[in-house]
Amino acid sequence: MQKYKIVFFSIVCSSLLTTYSGFSQDISPDKVKPIFGILPKVADNPANPVTPEKVNLGRYLFFEPRLSKSAKISCNSCHSLANSGVDGLPTSIGHKWQIGPRNAPTVLNAALQFTQFWDGRAKDVEEQAMGPMLNPKEMASTKELVVQRLKSIPQYEEMFHKAFPEDTDPITFENAAKAIAAFERTLLTLSRFDRYMDGDLSALSPEEKEGLKTFIQTGCITCHNGTDIGGGMFQKFGLVHKVEWLQDLGRFEVTKNPADKYVFKVPSLRNVTKTAPYFNNGRVWSLEEAVKTMGYVQLGKNLSDEEVKKIVSFLGSLAAEPPLQITLPNLPPSTAKTPKPMP
Amino acid sequence: MQKYKIVFFSIVCSSLLTTYSGFSQDISPDKVKPIFGILPKVADNPANPVTPEKVNLGRYLFFEPRLSKSAKISCNSCHSLANSGVDGLPTSIGHKWQIGPRNAPTVLNAALQFTQFWDGRAKDVEEQAMGPMLNPKEMASTKELVVQRLKSIPQYEEMFHKAFPEDTDPITFENAAKAIAAFERTLLTLSRFDRYMDGDLSALSPEEKEGLKTFIQTGCITCHNGTDIGGGMFQKFGLVHKVEWLQDLGRFEVTKNPADKYVFKVPSLRNVTKTAPYFNNGRVWSLEEAVKTMGYVQLGKNLSDEEVKKIVSFLGSLAAEPPLQITLPNLPPSTAKTPKPMP
Ligand code: HEC
Ligand code: HEC
Ligand code: HEC
Ligand code: HEC
Ligand SMILES: [Ca+2]
Ligand SMILES: [Ca+2]
Repeated sequence: MQKYKIVFFSIVCSSLLTTYSGFSQDISPDKVKPIFGILPKVADNPANPVTPEKVNLGRYLFFEPRLSKSAKISCNSCHSLANSGVDGLPTSIGHKWQIGPRNAPTVLNAALQFTQFWDGRAKDVEEQAMGPMLNPKEMASTKELVVQRLKSIPQYEEMFHKAFPEDTDPITFENAAKAIAAFERTLLTLSRFDRYMDGDLSALSPEEKEGLKTFIQTGCITCHNGTDIGGGMFQKFGLVHKVEWLQDLGRFEVTKNPADKYVFKVPSLRNVTKTAPYFNNGRVWSLEEAVKTMGYVQLGKNLSDEEVKKIVSFLGSLAAEPPLQITLPNLPPSTAKTPKPMP
Repeated sequence: MQKYKIVFFSIVCSSLLTTYSGFSQDISPDKVKPIFGILPKVADNPANPVTPEKVNLGRYLFFEPRLSKSAKISCNSCHSLANSGVDGLPTSIGHKWQIGPRNAPTVLNAALQFTQFWDGRAKDVEEQAMGPMLNPKEMASTKELVVQRLKSIPQYEEMFHKAFPEDTDPITFENAAKAIAAFERTLLTLSRFDRYMDGDLSALSPEEKEGLKTFIQTGCITCHNGTDIGGGMFQKFGLVHKVEWLQDLGRFEVTKNPADKYVFKVPSLRNVTKTAPYFNNGRVWSLEEAVKTMGYVQLGKNLSDEEVKKIVSFLGSLAAEPPLQITLPNLPPSTAKTPKPMP
């Protein structure tokens, strides 16, 4: 199914690529809105309805280092909500300071994406959240340890019962992931660009409008479209020109399909001015360079410095506005039964 | 000067120790208040006045991993404000996963203490805050790196100017520490016990009142007194009976005075039910055991399980109430000039 999706998008893309010069010059909100769409208040999931109780529990768990073996690493360690949901490192540091192979994407607006991880190996944030807890390079925990830690803390017992009122034994590894996912489903950030699409023409500066036009006309929207301005398809990184430094085989590692070599999820560009360094291995620090690279390797275009500058200016309008407001939880204390940290 | 303080307190202590049974039975707010005193709104310091601009900057810096060499570790990594200002580990994990020798005390109410660190090697939170940034086992940075990183970020330039309006070149290592300290000076937590002292007799349960009485009559207040219920003096850990497992020489490492062997700052007991594990090396996980140990090694008393239970119940009334409410900052992005993470 996902294979078909890629094939399908590849066809759409190729045809768009040859006709990108045909993209409209008109950047009035009414023309632009259909390309991107409207940010919802929450990214709901019928299979895991977003309730206040679940979101509240999820917020606690997102900051909960006891989900990790060492009791030192929480989701927030690598997706700092004080730092636009990223760690700002080329590749992340996990259990025992192990340095991973990939750059941590932001959790902001992540729930809106059609798939999770650079290689799409988790279908949604519910499935995704189980990954890092068990990853020996990240939180290095086990399902049993997570459940044992949580069950030993009466306040969590109560919070899980409230969040999963139908379950008789609600503290499970899967429910922990569901609660975290529900919290992530609320981490959506409006921006000045959304205000613009809503009709407020003054929300973008003249340069940002020029950038939007360039972004559309250059063909970036072939891949970076939809509410997340990305996050809606897989694409080969190096579609037109090979990316010389790219080692990671991307989606191929998941499907073993040779056509998936160097294929990655197109990332969302929301908050992208805050989430350096760029690309799946965090190799590029400058957004200008990232944009220039994209133009060349994905579209076969040598963008001028002027064009790059305008696009980067437009990308700045995708930053959270109003700024994210997260109140820290107050984590409940361990008890005599809580398994100790294993650093 | 501090030497005299210890001697002075030792004398006071010994005389109190022999007469502790003379402590009042009366635990009415009016009798109790003079022992502990009233929590101020902020722990002001004339040498570093607490202004909203400085506190705001300090909040940013407290969550700022770029103060560390790796750009991975912030103050909040070890003093998680989601977790009552501690990391919950026996001893802390720092740069490159180095495991330090001591338990991280909470930053909550720390500014009120007469000195900082277990061994009092920093006189106040301003001096203290410089320690971890430069400590090779903690944040492993240098003054130059901290200043270079901050100066490379325009938003910090602006925030430092607002926080230190008299300085022409406000981004200095010392000012960074001052801003963090100003933020810490606002991290004071009221509790039900404060409400009780304010005259609300219903703020403590009957068992907690019994515990307060026991805490006073047993002689705990000889050392754990003042607004912070501790944090006001140095004392030998093992004053009456030797602590068998204690290796750390404490204040002796600072003064090299043999009389300071095994001498530590008496810690504040505010939020103590949330800051396990206990003692300077985090060896003891159970608060009951910590209290029992205190009775024996500091006062030569074998407290009954019943007495311990009451005291622990009273200590629970010292937890933050209303709970701490911290809103995360939104850290500004790095620029091309920002020195890269060095993990
Ligand atoms: C040690 C660092 C680390 C920790 C801890 C961590 N993550 Fe991640 N996270 C990453 C990295 C690196 C990736 C990208 C991995 C990949 O794509 O192969 C990622 C990917 C993600 C994604 C996918 C985003 C996208 O755009 O595809 C989400 C969502 C996410 N993490 C949420 C979480 C949650 C929830 C937790 C805690 C349960 C967590 N992370 C813990 C480093 C971390
Ligand atoms: C044919 C598809 C495609 C086109 C066209 C395309 N991109 Fe991308 N873009 C991707 C993919 C795939 C990635 C992820 C690459 C990787 O694995 O790091 C990406 C990554 C990026 C990134 C880095 C995001 C991050 O967080 O690391 C930026 C910025 C970006 N694109 C901007 C643009 C701009 C601007 C244009 C037009 C000039 C453009 N893209 C055109 C597919 C595309
Ligand atoms: C790697 C872990 C780690 C980091 C990072 C760290 N601390 Fe600490 N902190 C500790 C430990 C451990 C102690 C006790 C050390 C001692 O007493 O010798 C301590 C002590 C303190 C104290 C003294 C509290 C008391 O009751 O005496 C304060 C205040 C404090 N830290 C604030 C900070 C600030 C501010 C930062 C960031 C600039 C910071 N810490 C960074 C672990 C850390
Ligand atoms: C003579 C001084 C003195 C007396 C009396 C005393 N304490 Fe302490 N207390 C200390 C010192 C010093 C420490 C720090 C020991 C260390 O280095 O870990 C401490 C530590 C503690 C701790 C651990 C705090 C933490 O965060 O690790 C608790 C709990 C405590 N005391 C409770 C009590 C109780 C209850 C009593 C009365 C039964 C009492 N203390 C009597 C000096 C005293
Ligand atoms: Ca990134
Ligand atoms: Ca402790």
